[in-house]
Amino acid sequence: MAAFQMGSGYAVPMTLFKNNRDRVSKALLRQLSKNLKFDSGNLLVLLEGGKDQSLYNTDVDYVFRQESYFQYLFGAKEPGCYGILTIDVRTGGVSSILFVPRLPEEYSTWMGELLTPEEFKAMYEVDAVYYLDELTDYLEKAAPKLILTLSGTNSDSGLTMQPPEFDGKEKYVTDCDLLYPILSECRVIKSAEEIEVLRYVAKVSSDAHIKVMKFIRPGKMEFEGESLFLHHSYSVGGCRHASYTCICGSGTNSSILHYGHAGAPNSRPIQDGEMCLFDMGANYCGYAADITCTFPANGKFTDDQKFIYNAVLDARNAVSETARDGVSWVDMHKLAGKVLLQRLKEGGMLKGDVDEMLEAGLSAVFQPHGLGHLIGLDVHDVGGYLPTEPKRPNEPWLCKLRFARVLKAGMYVTIEPGCYFIKRLMDGALANPELRKFINVDVFNRFRNFGGVRIEDDVLITQNGIENFAIVPRTVEEIEATMSSE
Amino acid sequence: MAAFQMGSGYAVPMTLFKNNRDRVSKALLRQLSKNLKFDSGNLLVLLEGGKDQSLYNTDVDYVFRQESYFQYLFGAKEPGCYGILTIDVRTGGVSSILFVPRLPEEYSTWMGELLTPEEFKAMYEVDAVYYLDELTDYLEKAAPKLILTLSGTNSDSGLTMQPPEFDGKEKYVTDCDLLYPILSECRVIKSAEEIEVLRYVAKVSSDAHIKVMKFIRPGKMEFEGESLFLHHSYSVGGCRHASYTCICGSGTNSSILHYGHAGAPNSRPIQDGEMCLFDMGANYCGYAADITCTFPANGKFTDDQKFIYNAVLDARNAVSETARDGVSWVDMHKLAGKVLLQRLKEGGMLKGDVDEMLEAGLSAVFQPHGLGHLIGLDVHDVGGYLPTEPKRPNEPWLCKLRFARVLKAGMYVTIEPGCYFIKRLMDGALANPELRKFINVDVFNRFRNFGGVRIEDDVLITQNGIENFAIVPRTVEEIEATMSSE
Repeated sequence: MAAFQMGSGYAVPMTLFKNNRDRVSKALLRQLSKNLKFDSGNLLVLLEGGKDQSLYNTDVDYVFRQESYFQYLFGAKEPGCYGILTIDVRTGGVSSILFVPRLPEEYSTWMGELLTPEEFKAMYEVDAVYYLDELTDYLEKAAPKLILTLSGTNSDSGLTMQPPEFDGKEKYVTDCDLLYPILSECRVIKSAEEIEVLRYVAKVSSDAHIKVMKFIRPGKMEFEGESLFLHHSYSVGGCRHASYTCICGSGTNSSILHYGHAGAPNSRPIQDGEMCLFDMGANYCGYAADITCTFPANGKFTDDQKFIYNAVLDARNAVSETARDGVSWVDMHKLAGKVLLQRLKEGGMLKGDVDEMLEAGLSAVFQPHGLGHLIGLDVHDVGGYLPTEPKRPNEPWLCKLRFARVLKAGMYVTIEPGCYFIKRLMDGALANPELRKFINVDVFNRFRNFGGVRIEDDVLITQNGIENFAIVPRTVEEIEATMSSE
Repeated sequence: MAAFQMGSGYAVPMTLFKNNRDRVSKALLRQLSKNLKFDSGNLLVLLEGGKDQSLYNTDVDYVFRQESYFQYLFGAKEPGCYGILTIDVRTGGVSSILFVPRLPEEYSTWMGELLTPEEFKAMYEVDAVYYLDELTDYLEKAAPKLILTLSGTNSDSGLTMQPPEFDGKEKYVTDCDLLYPILSECRVIKSAEEIEVLRYVAKVSSDAHIKVMKFIRPGKMEFEGESLFLHHSYSVGGCRHASYTCICGSGTNSSILHYGHAGAPNSRPIQDGEMCLFDMGANYCGYAADITCTFPANGKFTDDQKFIYNAVLDARNAVSETARDGVSWVDMHKLAGKVLLQRLKEGGMLKGDVDEMLEAGLSAVFQPHGLGHLIGLDVHDVGGYLPTEPKRPNEPWLCKLRFARVLKAGMYVTIEPGCYFIKRLMDGALANPELRKFINVDVFNRFRNFGGVRIEDDVLITQNGIENFAIVPRTVEEIEATMSSE
């Protein structure tokens, strides 16, 4: 059985991708039978794989990462491929053809022995492999009645994927709208085989987080944590890529939601008495983890740190105990906000009726982001705002949600409540009488330089609850014990 | 004094970039006075900085790296900037203006406190900073007689950089051809301040290579070497980026010149008795290192391994002793080839007259690449085939040279002779009577599974010789001693 494997890392069976193809084929046929737009003849799905991306006009390329939809269907690690699914509308049978670039023989000197189509076929367990320059002939012989191509807009980035170009396109009936929502919805519900890959990459990431937590002490640089995380994930776990830029904030940096970018590159020395918020996730065979741990730099929580940390932990626990198939994600966001405000009130920072605070939008002062997001091949995975699903809410304290759907068994999501003390939002709340009336200003202002806390798990939604793949210390006691052990 | 610094890494003074600007200004004025195209009035140079690059249509960005020409002139680490040099044609005085994106205030929640123009000015020691939306007004007030923009083709990639677009461009006289060769030539000769950065990043990379050499043993995966190199470079040296994809070949993989790409991702377990060829270089503040070490996996050279290794080392030593200001790089390539062939002959692999072998192109069977390349902000740095410099040679055994210039003091180049046993080239040589006649076939064929050896230093060309910034064990004895020490 062919598999993707790096070192002693998890062996991802190529049947995973075959199952994905079968699932997409079935979903397409269901949709087509509804639409009655298409009932017989030869249906093709044509996808373009990712291309090498150069650093400006130099001859240095970024290390190639496959485009996620292409990865989902073909699991091919090489740039410059195309892929076709041919679907038998009567039987639902699907066959898969991979088209690979025909490289000049002299490339073998630079890239290693060039694989033959037969070798590619064995490696990816597709039904056939041809050279890309054979695509035109292939299409002419196949004479498809309809070719579906992929185009759509990512609801997190707002960026639109363009449909692929190919020679002779004008000779065929093509549709570039139908496929995107169907394929995206297939990606939302994870298969048993995908779940095992996601479990693996979350475990590698969890272990790397624990290693970082044990390593970090006052005086270390934030980026030393990033470097150690990446090293463990790659060296031990075989994960060459991170799923996103590592966020390693200490002190007030821990309240910068996307800290770690080039303008603020995890470059600060960590100080005694501060909180560290480290949000890092590895990537294996395209599949992502996204885990955040927050801990005191010196390994011991102060009372104020316990107060905020436990408020977030309670919010996380409340969601973890409630989320399951059939529950609305918007309700989970509200629940997390309510528990957070309740705990902040109990600790003396807030006053008044918690439901009224929530309705006034106070929770967004402390947690300006959504409770979590779909995750899979993309860290912010596709399927959030498909046409058939609930639209993005308008309320300011809900509009940052990356999806607003009812949870379904097989969805894989992050649960990541947070509580941050962000100057702009704190000043805004104090300047707004509708919010200020709930705030005990002295207590609130005491936390101006606190930074923030986020607790982020990666969880599989099941019929009866969730399964958490982030296996890291979460309680104050667990974190202190981990940081004081060798 | 403002500086770029990561942790305890080298503090790169912002005067480095000011000196670069002065140098470019002087070079431009020299050129303009020659051309008599321009003798008075306001001359502007307008450059566009690098932009964030997303991973396909997702909201994940590659970690931003500044475009090298922009880095050379401004040293700015943020994406989305523009920069202007205003040059007083009479005095040669230059002033620098950086234009930064005006980000919405709410971005501070995600990216941290937004810097004011005054803060950017202090950070980069430019003469003024404005928001990018002020560029049009700035140009109208400046009323330049000529605006030089940057466009040109990289001789290593063949990729062309497009000149920047800006509002009102049509109102000005612009020239997008003049600047590229002048700016490129300025980048070729390194300043004293640049040399210290290059020395630093080469030292960090050297230390990381030594760490890897001590760590690697049979049974380790190739990518464990890559991971450790990256970790040391970042964690200890503050180098967030590698200058290129790490090449970590063991066994026959060590003869694949650009091994390590996504299709062959350093994924093989290293075996006892094999050679390891690890070509890796860190990047600091945009400046590159590019170092190759070749060593036996088990720490002890066999006789065959000594034979090939020492042949390459002798070629490297011959070049190192001869290269200096005024020497032709093509001659150095020939010298390396001649020494290599001489040693292979002495070891019994070749027979006949060495000069005849060289003329027949036999050295390219063993070393199909050029002897080395310019290095600086790009690993294959610009300036190789400028219009004023010698053209790429036509001979098959010379045409891979990335430059063919006469060396000048202040150039920074790699010296990287190699000897590889590549199936396609070996078979080709045996099939060609003009080459085969020099080959003792039995000895030659004994090395079919040997892989390859490359020894790559980063050296500064001086008046009297070279200074090597790659401080790694190079002799057989040094390597064996390093690998047997803790």
